[in-house]
Amino acid sequence: MLSVTFQKELEEYQAKINLELDNFFNKVISENNYGFNVKLLGVIKEFTMRGGKRIRPLLVLKGFQAVSISKGIVNQKLEQEVLKLSICVELMQTSFLIHDDIMDKSELRRNKPTVHKILGENMAILAGNIAMILAQKIITDSNFSEEIKLKATNKFNEIIQTTNYGQILDLQLSEKNIFEVNEDDINQIHLLKTAKYTIEGPLQLGVILAGDPDNVQDKLVEISKIALPLGRAFQIQDDLLGIFGSEEKLGKSVFSDIIENKKTLLVWCAYMKANEEEKEFIKLVLGKQDISEDEFSKLKEIIIKTGSKDYSKEKLIGLTEQVTHFINSSLLDRKTKNFLLNLAEFFVDREF
Amino acid sequence: MLSVTFQKELEEYQAKINLELDNFFNKVISENNYGFNVKLLGVIKEFTMRGGKRIRPLLVLKGFQAVSISKGIVNQKLEQEVLKLSICVELMQTSFLIHDDIMDKSELRRNKPTVHKILGENMAILAGNIAMILAQKIITDSNFSEEIKLKATNKFNEIIQTTNYGQILDLQLSEKNIFEVNEDDINQIHLLKTAKYTIEGPLQLGVILAGDPDNVQDKLVEISKIALPLGRAFQIQDDLLGIFGSEEKLGKSVFSDIIENKKTLLVWCAYMKANEEEKEFIKLVLGKQDISEDEFSKLKEIIIKTGSKDYSKEKLIGLTEQVTHFINSSLLDRKTKNFLLNLAEFFVDREF
Repeated sequence: MLSVTFQKELEEYQAKINLELDNFFNKVISENNYGFNVKLLGVIKEFTMRGGKRIRPLLVLKGFQAVSISKGIVNQKLEQEVLKLSICVELMQTSFLIHDDIMDKSELRRNKPTVHKILGENMAILAGNIAMILAQKIITDSNFSEEIKLKATNKFNEIIQTTNYGQILDLQLSEKNIFEVNEDDINQIHLLKTAKYTIEGPLQLGVILAGDPDNVQDKLVEISKIALPLGRAFQIQDDLLGIFGSEEKLGKSVFSDIIENKKTLLVWCAYMKANEEEKEFIKLVLGKQDISEDEFSKLKEIIIKTGSKDYSKEKLIGLTEQVTHFINSSLLDRKTKNFLLNLAEFFVDREF
Repeated sequence: MLSVTFQKELEEYQAKINLELDNFFNKVISENNYGFNVKLLGVIKEFTMRGGKRIRPLLVLKGFQAVSISKGIVNQKLEQEVLKLSICVELMQTSFLIHDDIMDKSELRRNKPTVHKILGENMAILAGNIAMILAQKIITDSNFSEEIKLKATNKFNEIIQTTNYGQILDLQLSEKNIFEVNEDDINQIHLLKTAKYTIEGPLQLGVILAGDPDNVQDKLVEISKIALPLGRAFQIQDDLLGIFGSEEKLGKSVFSDIIENKKTLLVWCAYMKANEEEKEFIKLVLGKQDISEDEFSKLKEIIIKTGSKDYSKEKLIGLTEQVTHFINSSLLDRKTKNFLLNLAEFFVDREF
């Protein structure tokens, strides 16, 4: 059971990050010189402010603290600067989501119309581009030293590149039949699109902001070791929720993973263990735009019956144990360790 | 008449820049860790290598030389680094063109299929994003000092932002009727999408690479003064060629500006000076996807008859005179002045 303290900490940070985001957008909009793009900037703001767990900016801060705590330094003013910068990863997420929604032809995001539904596809392509350049400018406009800003920019650009590469693979797999895909492909996507993007990248960005050359390299390695299984665990839970979760809590249709022909471990395993008749059925419904409630229920039954749901859950537990082991045996400080242990637990327990 | 020396210089630089581009792509492809994105990187390379005037990277070099010549320093090794970095503006151009072609539903670019025709729209969105991140990484991976790389990144990001903003306005105007647009709107697009993007940005990027704080600010101001009318002149010629040019030399259909409902000075003026019957005709054909040869000929006649073609040409001459005056009265060195004067002449004389 997730500790109440952790949940409270998470909520406190979410509020702080939302405040930073709000301040940022107000500044961008008030300093904007052109009348014609006010609407688009407003849409990017509204889309970003719809919510989200804000895990990525929080991880930037935690990466920073992992270095500063180990040095025995607490500098509240500097932490405020880190918080201000940390929202760049949310703007990046906004950019990716806007483009993803176009590609997936999704109509809803967090229970509201997607950007291309509001502005049209062409303007949404530009909105995604603008969100990304705003994200990058947050780093270069920050108050950190030139050296740190350049290193942070390098890391940030590396995250953008890796995530785009993951997206290529995802698109390629979504055009394939399930039997043409193997588990390595699925793991590769988890690595690029989740572990590196959601966990490792933000934590490492935070470490870099601490700007301590002696400590940074060790910390980056420690973090990678933890981030990769943690990211995979996060993704497996995401895929479980995508099929078995609550639409209301998720803010999107539980059909969407199936309609988009997303290659998840859950569906892939079910297919591998299914009998011939079930295999044909799975092939039929994957990517089907007008999948019915009955077909969806039958698919869920097959996922359960073949043991695929249990397999995903076992994998999730195995990865979480691995993460716990890596955290405990790492050289990170006690506070950072506790945070990461709680986070791993949160990833498994979450319903959204 | 354009000097033979200038034409030769232009061709020599084009060859050098093409070589740098080729080296760059070969390096990216050979260092790439993923099998799944080889095809996409190959398409980005092929698309970039189709040609182009390579004016933007050349202007980066010329901006750099404007500072180094005035300091009396010629450093060939450093100039080679500038040349290596200068291709970032071509990669940026590739990114913009890939996304623009999606938005305009263009099928051809330089007489060959557009990226979304080759890879599909979704993959083309990603290809545009990847070209841009590659462009940005060229700067941060270069051998310049951290201080210069950060300043160059700032300038580069500013160019990306401004150009995206120009693209918003362009899209908004293309959805409007011609009578809803005014000359200021058209000038604003020329400023954002051409003058700043094609002329001022690259020149200023080069000035920044010279990294001489005492000289940089003055040079940036001088360059802005020249770049803005020069960019407008370039765009007016572009619009003239877009209607009256040779398809073969342009590598695109002369119908495309009309089909895309592009708001050019040429069409706008024709509309303003046309009689009621002609106005109705212009409204009818603008944005018409299946415009016929006859309709296109009639439109050209109206543009000539109303004096709009002459008006554009006069404007072009007026701007070129203004540019010449600004160049001659500037504090730039003789060599840079000559280059810019020749460039202005080239912009007016060009047929592609």
